[in-house]
Amino acid sequence: MTAPNVNTLWAETLVSELAAGGVDAVCLSPGSRSTPLTVAFAEHPDIEVFSHLDERSAAFFALGRARRTGEPTPLVCTSGTAAANYHPAVIEANQSGVPLLLLTADRPPELIDSGANQTVDQEKLYGDAVRWYRDMPEPEAEPRKMRMLRTTAARALAKSTGRNPGPVHLNCRFRKPLEPTPTPDDDPAGVPADWAGGDDAAEAGRDGPFVSTSEGVATPDERTVRRVQDALRAAERGLIVAGPADQGLSAESLEQLASATGFPVLADPLSGLRFGPHVDRLDVPVCSGYDGYLGSDGVEWSDPDVVVRFGASPTSKPLRHYLRDADCRQFVVDPSGGWPEAEFTATDLLVADEDATADALASGSLGSVAASWRERFARAERIHWDAVDDAAAETYWEGGVLADVAALAPDPATLFVSNSMPIRDMDRFGRPRDADLTVLGNRGASGIDGITSTALGAGSATADPLVLVTGDLAYYHDMNGLLALGRCAVDATVVLVNNDGGGIFHMLPIDDHPTFEDQFRTPHGLDFEPTEALYSLEFERAADRRQFRERFGASVESDGTQVIEVQFDAGDSHAVRDRVARQVGDALGGDR
Amino acid sequence: MTAPNVNTLWAETLVSELAAGGVDAVCLSPGSRSTPLTVAFAEHPDIEVFSHLDERSAAFFALGRARRTGEPTPLVCTSGTAAANYHPAVIEANQSGVPLLLLTADRPPELIDSGANQTVDQEKLYGDAVRWYRDMPEPEAEPRKMRMLRTTAARALAKSTGRNPGPVHLNCRFRKPLEPTPTPDDDPAGVPADWAGGDDAAEAGRDGPFVSTSEGVATPDERTVRRVQDALRAAERGLIVAGPADQGLSAESLEQLASATGFPVLADPLSGLRFGPHVDRLDVPVCSGYDGYLGSDGVEWSDPDVVVRFGASPTSKPLRHYLRDADCRQFVVDPSGGWPEAEFTATDLLVADEDATADALASGSLGSVAASWRERFARAERIHWDAVDDAAAETYWEGGVLADVAALAPDPATLFVSNSMPIRDMDRFGRPRDADLTVLGNRGASGIDGITSTALGAGSATADPLVLVTGDLAYYHDMNGLLALGRCAVDATVVLVNNDGGGIFHMLPIDDHPTFEDQFRTPHGLDFEPTEALYSLEFERAADRRQFRERFGASVESDGTQVIEVQFDAGDSHAVRDRVARQVGDALGGDR
Repeated sequence: MTAPNVNTLWAETLVSELAAGGVDAVCLSPGSRSTPLTVAFAEHPDIEVFSHLDERSAAFFALGRARRTGEPTPLVCTSGTAAANYHPAVIEANQSGVPLLLLTADRPPELIDSGANQTVDQEKLYGDAVRWYRDMPEPEAEPRKMRMLRTTAARALAKSTGRNPGPVHLNCRFRKPLEPTPTPDDDPAGVPADWAGGDDAAEAGRDGPFVSTSEGVATPDERTVRRVQDALRAAERGLIVAGPADQGLSAESLEQLASATGFPVLADPLSGLRFGPHVDRLDVPVCSGYDGYLGSDGVEWSDPDVVVRFGASPTSKPLRHYLRDADCRQFVVDPSGGWPEAEFTATDLLVADEDATADALASGSLGSVAASWRERFARAERIHWDAVDDAAAETYWEGGVLADVAALAPDPATLFVSNSMPIRDMDRFGRPRDADLTVLGNRGASGIDGITSTALGAGSATADPLVLVTGDLAYYHDMNGLLALGRCAVDATVVLVNNDGGGIFHMLPIDDHPTFEDQFRTPHGLDFEPTEALYSLEFERAADRRQFRERFGASVESDGTQVIEVQFDAGDSHAVRDRVARQVGDALGGDR
Repeated sequence: MTAPNVNTLWAETLVSELAAGGVDAVCLSPGSRSTPLTVAFAEHPDIEVFSHLDERSAAFFALGRARRTGEPTPLVCTSGTAAANYHPAVIEANQSGVPLLLLTADRPPELIDSGANQTVDQEKLYGDAVRWYRDMPEPEAEPRKMRMLRTTAARALAKSTGRNPGPVHLNCRFRKPLEPTPTPDDDPAGVPADWAGGDDAAEAGRDGPFVSTSEGVATPDERTVRRVQDALRAAERGLIVAGPADQGLSAESLEQLASATGFPVLADPLSGLRFGPHVDRLDVPVCSGYDGYLGSDGVEWSDPDVVVRFGASPTSKPLRHYLRDADCRQFVVDPSGGWPEAEFTATDLLVADEDATADALASGSLGSVAASWRERFARAERIHWDAVDDAAAETYWEGGVLADVAALAPDPATLFVSNSMPIRDMDRFGRPRDADLTVLGNRGASGIDGITSTALGAGSATADPLVLVTGDLAYYHDMNGLLALGRCAVDATVVLVNNDGGGIFHMLPIDDHPTFEDQFRTPHGLDFEPTEALYSLEFERAADRRQFRERFGASVESDGTQVIEVQFDAGDSHAVRDRVARQVGDALGGDR
């Protein structure tokens, strides 16, 4: 490989190795210092370019693609504050174990802390939030350095994926010329034809990635398997809890474990297990109304005696508190060793692959769970869903919209759900069904920033229809992300639940304080209809349930992006949530 | 001081000490974990609240107020990614020495790295970009801790201002109850009436700030003064260069130094010295066209033999290169010791107050500068301004708009100029005049993020009319910042120079590369008129110079915010810049 100058050589080599490692897309933001990388990515025949003007949105878009695919979409930005705009998405990626590859352009080392323009300290900019950081050496046409560069590309991909996936940051320093300007051989920036001195691997790379990384699958040893099996076998009231996980326990392995144990499954909407064919096939209940009935007043639930937990800490606070208060054996399975259990009641951590663990545990007969225990959950689910159906029929409200979205989303679809109330409502009112729905959310740090961009990034990764359910604060916060609809050619159905401010704060004791309205609910009075004229979307409103279902159905069938706004009073919706919970509680009564 | 619970006590104490230290405003963003701080700020009678929904915009707004006033406006956000959204503004504040006080709410220490919701690692979140960081201890009604809290408030204000101003980060941990919920005395969160045990200072603070900080003014010693005076006295071709500085050398001290030395003054538009009564009073030229004539082809300039530099590295690249190539004595005056001189040709660093230094130097007679040297600059200025006037009369173009803004801005006014082309055009085409114009920009890191919010923050600080000149990319990047027009009641005249993408890239060699259009210029085709319907502003366009001058004049006279969009082809404007420079170069010719 040769090139007009050393920066071009360096960037083309890096990009070709990333492509060899499977990278097929990149998110670029315009800038000068990043020119070598931008040109190399844009000219690579096998890499799709997503161009973003706001780096914050760019990073969330890349995060969304990675959530959907499990593979990183590199990010490229110029030097200075541009890189700091990635920080919120880096934190979310760190917390939820999503691959990100951050390629920040930087000035050469002699300009640091000198007063030079657009030169800031980018060293370890994201602190401990990245899995791996390298301050890249300055480009040079030298065999060992080029082997280092090729190896670094392979390492960066391996470090960002693998057993403990997350963000990786390569700070890439370039000095002028940044453009592919031909430079004489004897210039320090020149590339002599014989620079590699016969080192073909340094010059041309290898057939495929320069280094192939093969990471083993962590499987629990036999003694551990027997120990856990003994505990499961002894249980009368066992539970399988599947928390949020983008690439976690598979439906097949869940089916095996559920069949072997007979334990009810409590499936978080973000577990990847609430929807799919296993829902109808399983003879244990796949529960999803637990957020309503586990926390109902006056309903007493027996403690489980053993719990097997997969994924992150569940979205549902009633479920977390139920598990906190259970005096029982709790096995947490986490291949990264991250231990996502903030109530500190777990008794065993299994650092092993979720499927390998479930398959190993399911290899023997474990069935002794009490039939009444299963029936208890099955009955609660029936009562819960009847109450939800009643409420949806009687009232047009936030939870009903989420229930309709879960019921009407096309099969297959990617369904992205915002933080704050939408994900809580999806948890409580999104009923399991046999459909290939990939439900995603940003629950690592649970911010309301970057929601639109994350969703559009996820949508860009497959041909599946994309549905986004968001709130008005999240829609405002990442309004810039809507530019990707046109620039990155993503189609979506956006359900915008607008209650003019922070509806979630009604759930907190602050809601009767004099500062509540201005500093917590913070109504903004924004009319979002003008986003239609700004961005590539059609904006419509749905005034009642019939209209919402019609518009939603039409949107998922049609091209382009429709934003369907539904307007509610947050207080009214909270009243319906309470009413449904009371109805369920009354029906379940003292029944244990 | 007592309170319903320890969090309320803690937050009210912190806020009352900040108010005692001079804080009169705060930027709040809604969230739950920050409730104690939010309530304490909102209820304080002497503190104005600016409520922002997007933390990135909030931080730039606070930055803008601090640029204008020299005093920090504290920022309050909830835990999680919210705090990371401050990062771009923190970097800008660090680089340009602007006070910021970041109060990030955080979870109690036992929840860190546990998988608890919205809990991220906020420790030293901004790395080395802050002057001071404290992970605050947990609130407790204990005399020594409360004295520590009061002292910390005073220290935080002192550290963020003073000789080396910049951001300060206090990470504030709270456990529930977050609201001012009355809590029994015997609860760990309770506040017994006698908690202070008679320590009145801990309980009630003092009259005024708990600790008054008095930082001395660094004045150069006599030997240094004589040494520098000797050098100035020996000079035939001396220069005073005033680079960007929000609170730097005063016009009075500049006048003294210029009178004593007879050196021409090269005044950056961000130096605070390009506009004002001294411009007409001085008998040395206050130069501002140097960006055009110092870099003109075919024009030979003699080297200066001594240069006294104030402020940051100048915006003008031709000026920086002229100083780089000058084989001469260069005195850099910087009270922070920051040494803003990226060409590494400075010979002397004077770590001392700018005014004290200028006054001391001016105390003796220093006048030996060659009259021809002064006349050379005076003549170049005349030729430059004639050429600019000709171009403005003939053509409607970007530089002409900046020239008109400088000429027509009301007196007094705050004038905020975006990075990329607007600040370069203000540098080259903004003619000095006797008017109280405070010209500000974000030249620390020179990002295009947060421009609107920084401007509106600056505008919120005084009753002066606010003018913002921005580009289309910057306008898009911080569109969320426009929400502050209504929420924070700021009026502005916004001149939106729209060339549909990154016009500055035309200045770089990449502009004939095949990737130029899509990855560098990156046209977005956005029609910004719908921002009128979204935000509290009137949107209008000016199709020619007459119309622009009319609309600009009307806007600065009227209430409300007018966005005046001027549309140009970036390439055309570059051609006019070149033409003006050629015309100046031809007229100056071989004249040295």
